[in-house]
Amino acid sequence: MRVIEGLEEAAGLCDRWRAAGLGVGLVPTMGALHEGHASLLRRARAECDRVAASIFVNPTQFGPGEDLAAYPRTRDADVALCEGAGVDLAFFARAEEVYPEGFQTWVTVEHIARPLCGASRPVHFRGVATVVTQLLAIVRPHRAYFGAKDYQQSRVVARLARDLHLGVEIRVCDAVREPDGLAMSSRNRHLSLPERAVAPRIYRALVAARDLVLTGEARVGRVLERLHEVLEPGPELRIDYAEVRDAEDLRELPGGRIARGAGVLIAVAAFVGNTRLIDNVVIPPDPRA
Amino acid sequence: MRVIEGLEEAAGLCDRWRAAGLGVGLVPTMGALHEGHASLLRRARAECDRVAASIFVNPTQFGPGEDLAAYPRTRDADVALCEGAGVDLAFFARAEEVYPEGFQTWVTVEHIARPLCGASRPVHFRGVATVVTQLLAIVRPHRAYFGAKDYQQSRVVARLARDLHLGVEIRVCDAVREPDGLAMSSRNRHLSLPERAVAPRIYRALVAARDLVLTGEARVGRVLERLHEVLEPGPELRIDYAEVRDAEDLRELPGGRIARGAGVLIAVAAFVGNTRLIDNVVIPPDPRA
Repeated sequence: MRVIEGLEEAAGLCDRWRAAGLGVGLVPTMGALHEGHASLLRRARAECDRVAASIFVNPTQFGPGEDLAAYPRTRDADVALCEGAGVDLAFFARAEEVYPEGFQTWVTVEHIARPLCGASRPVHFRGVATVVTQLLAIVRPHRAYFGAKDYQQSRVVARLARDLHLGVEIRVCDAVREPDGLAMSSRNRHLSLPERAVAPRIYRALVAARDLVLTGEARVGRVLERLHEVLEPGPELRIDYAEVRDAEDLRELPGGRIARGAGVLIAVAAFVGNTRLIDNVVIPPDPRA
Repeated sequence: MRVIEGLEEAAGLCDRWRAAGLGVGLVPTMGALHEGHASLLRRARAECDRVAASIFVNPTQFGPGEDLAAYPRTRDADVALCEGAGVDLAFFARAEEVYPEGFQTWVTVEHIARPLCGASRPVHFRGVATVVTQLLAIVRPHRAYFGAKDYQQSRVVARLARDLHLGVEIRVCDAVREPDGLAMSSRNRHLSLPERAVAPRIYRALVAARDLVLTGEARVGRVLERLHEVLEPGPELRIDYAEVRDAEDLRELPGGRIARGAGVLIAVAAFVGNTRLIDNVVIPPDPRA
């Protein structure tokens, strides 16, 4: 495995891979790698001739007052995990190189980036869209891998890749969960023991809400009631948002009703202590309905 | 020469060129090709193994009420000019393919896109930046060529290419002029005979203003006075803007004074009849000053 710091060197290596006719996969990460990332890397390994993992805590996707400084950095463990997953290139970037002096270019995705995390974190998806465009321009992968825990992010990235003709296939992989259902996240390591005990309520609530929809409940209001019932919001778990939306374009459901066979996203963001966690379940569209 | 309509087919051909180790040059145009474009194509021909010219009247860089519908379309002549200039690929795009259904991703450049044409045409540079990013993603050229008549555009493009790490060298080529100094432009063919007689005043005024600076005049106010004197604005020539700015970042000059040896842009946009023409002169920085 090559470990590279500079953007040009990484771009050059990936360019040589492409020129040699090799299929290139990219797994963009912010480091603090866990089993969720490992599953993306394994999928890339299985599907591509060469696998690059980028490791860059992107400052522009954090708003003022968010956890940029506190975001976990575990470089040596990240390199070891990449090595173990059969990665060919682990590529670290420095903010000064990713954002050169006088930087002033942004990639923005409109409608699908506005609700949910886009509403709570106003600059977040602008930062995500910009850095993903940069990373895709540097690596020029044939495929790039994103986790479904960040569902809205995966939709934003798929949209920009299509709109800007980046020539990359965006693959979205299932969230990986702890045995009690908590979605793997780099931020989980911030949780204290009592917070860790509370956190699985998020997924339990999502499953309860999904099950209600699957038994035929079409009223969004009733689904949200169920979600809140299991979430039991309080000082130890504060809801940032809890919503039911169209799974495709993330729009609100007309009339507050789930249409028969429609694809539905149920998404939650909540603070457990000071740690903001997100999770979701998707009910895919049923073409027979 | 290959003439291609579809984006994927064009991308595939350019990818094969790259994979074969050939240097690729792109000249992005809106068609209605003239001697200015020909000079870009010749430069690309001299510097690159393969030359692609894109021909696409990009709707998103026109605001409401601007001349999108009236913009000249001269497809057969464009193909002939490309052929004559030794182009390898002339590639036409359709708006429905460049902007797929549900399109919602924009590339914006901030500071340098705001003044001058950015102030007069609020959506213009967002459209330019987006389509140039798309074209660079499709063709992946090693070099792309832009004309200095559109000086601000060339700065916007150079900035976004650097900021997004597109791995392309942006080459800016001198404006090509008619014998009386009028900068070549696809829009010149809209000029009536009397309008055509008025239009060269723009370049004459720019030269007079430049000469004043070169003789040592440092006061922007005096330079603009000279510019206006020669422009002689009236019903037949209405000034949209006439400005003196920093040539590098397009900022206003502090204190309205030109610093010794500073790089200076003098830029004019004016309506001659209903046709909006732009032109500029640049005094490069003098490192000895």
